[in-house]
Amino acid sequence: MNLIVDVGNTLIKLAVFKNDVIEFYSSTKKEELELTLNEIKSEYLSIKKGILSSVGSFDDQSVFQFFNFPFINLNHHLKFPFKNRYTTPKTLGVDRLALVSAAAMHYPNEDVLVIDAGTCVTFDFLNSKNEYLGGAISPGLRLRYKSLNDFTANLPLLPTESPKEIVGDSTANSIHSGVVFGVVNEIKGAITQYEKQYPGLTVILTGGDSEFLSKQLKNGIFATSNFLLEGLNFILEYNS
Amino acid sequence: MNLIVDVGNTLIKLAVFKNDVIEFYSSTKKEELELTLNEIKSEYLSIKKGILSSVGSFDDQSVFQFFNFPFINLNHHLKFPFKNRYTTPKTLGVDRLALVSAAAMHYPNEDVLVIDAGTCVTFDFLNSKNEYLGGAISPGLRLRYKSLNDFTANLPLLPTESPKEIVGDSTANSIHSGVVFGVVNEIKGAITQYEKQYPGLTVILTGGDSEFLSKQLKNGIFATSNFLLEGLNFILEYNS
Repeated sequence: MNLIVDVGNTLIKLAVFKNDVIEFYSSTKKEELELTLNEIKSEYLSIKKGILSSVGSFDDQSVFQFFNFPFINLNHHLKFPFKNRYTTPKTLGVDRLALVSAAAMHYPNEDVLVIDAGTCVTFDFLNSKNEYLGGAISPGLRLRYKSLNDFTANLPLLPTESPKEIVGDSTANSIHSGVVFGVVNEIKGAITQYEKQYPGLTVILTGGDSEFLSKQLKNGIFATSNFLLEGLNFILEYNS
Repeated sequence: MNLIVDVGNTLIKLAVFKNDVIEFYSSTKKEELELTLNEIKSEYLSIKKGILSSVGSFDDQSVFQFFNFPFINLNHHLKFPFKNRYTTPKTLGVDRLALVSAAAMHYPNEDVLVIDAGTCVTFDFLNSKNEYLGGAISPGLRLRYKSLNDFTANLPLLPTESPKEIVGDSTANSIHSGVVFGVVNEIKGAITQYEKQYPGLTVILTGGDSEFLSKQLKNGIFATSNFLLEGLNFILEYNS
């Protein structure tokens, strides 16, 4: 059994894998992390190794000290199942390394675009020669709602909501239309741009907002919430 | 002559109109406002009336006290050259009232979509029956760059720059691709959605980032930087 810990910008995702299958999953806030770690420690006694991925400043020891098994800290010095053509590998978010690893594992010899819709929306492209070329980063749904409120004088902070119409007939509906259709049209447009260069492209949609967004997006997209965790589990095995 | 003052989220735009033509234009920060007002006061002695539009909290008196001619403060109680079908007129940004007034003046009896790319990107739709139905609001280019830096642990704050490729091969190029193609694809997608409902739609692109964005957008869009100011001048005449 493996323990996978993914520290994102907003939440910490924890999973216990048994032979590539998730036995336990939890998404917690930083304040509730210890509670979840205690639960895992008492329930899953046959965990043999772990991997931790963190996109920000995070005290890894706060997790490592809990367990007796060895942990790998995800960084760009590890072995990855693809060739990294990114010109600034040191500033490449480790979460993106995990997503591309999952793409290499699940879709070998295919052109794959991985779209992760979380705090940020990240686009990551692995070509059919198993080369990672890079992608894009833009603000995610919540970040857009938040920035409209934070950086303007009068706009309210709203919960995420599906717009009914493209024409928002009130300030709230205008914001829902702008934020949600904005992300949706951005994703559709990017897929179209990639497909022009790479016909037969495989598109993966993952991340916390993938379920919400998949309703608005057309077919031909594989939505999966565990893609990053699967990538981390793969990297852990690959480096053991 | 008319004095037009447009207080936005970031900059204050000032214009002197003589018979619907701009004789003077300046875009200043709040700290430099007094300097510009002094310049206008000493240079343009035949200004007879003014209008001030402010989207945030702004001390109108700081402008009004400078001049002897009467000022109109833009609010939703004024007369407008269109029927307002917005369900929350009190929270409708006055800048959007000015944009729709300009649309009604320039394109009577047409379906018009006004896209203002500034601090926020606003979409405003006036139908061919001269009814304003609403639109959308989303974060503008600078707000997206800023929010990526402010709300994540490791992403840098970058200046606005045209992406060379959809596939950003570095962290900086990933951000440029995500932010700029994001806004471009959002605008293209919204236009497509509107055109489906309103064939023959006229699209106006205006605001501080309109010139930068117009290079990336397809034809059939009229880009103009003074649309909002023209709308304000029109409202001023309409209410005098």
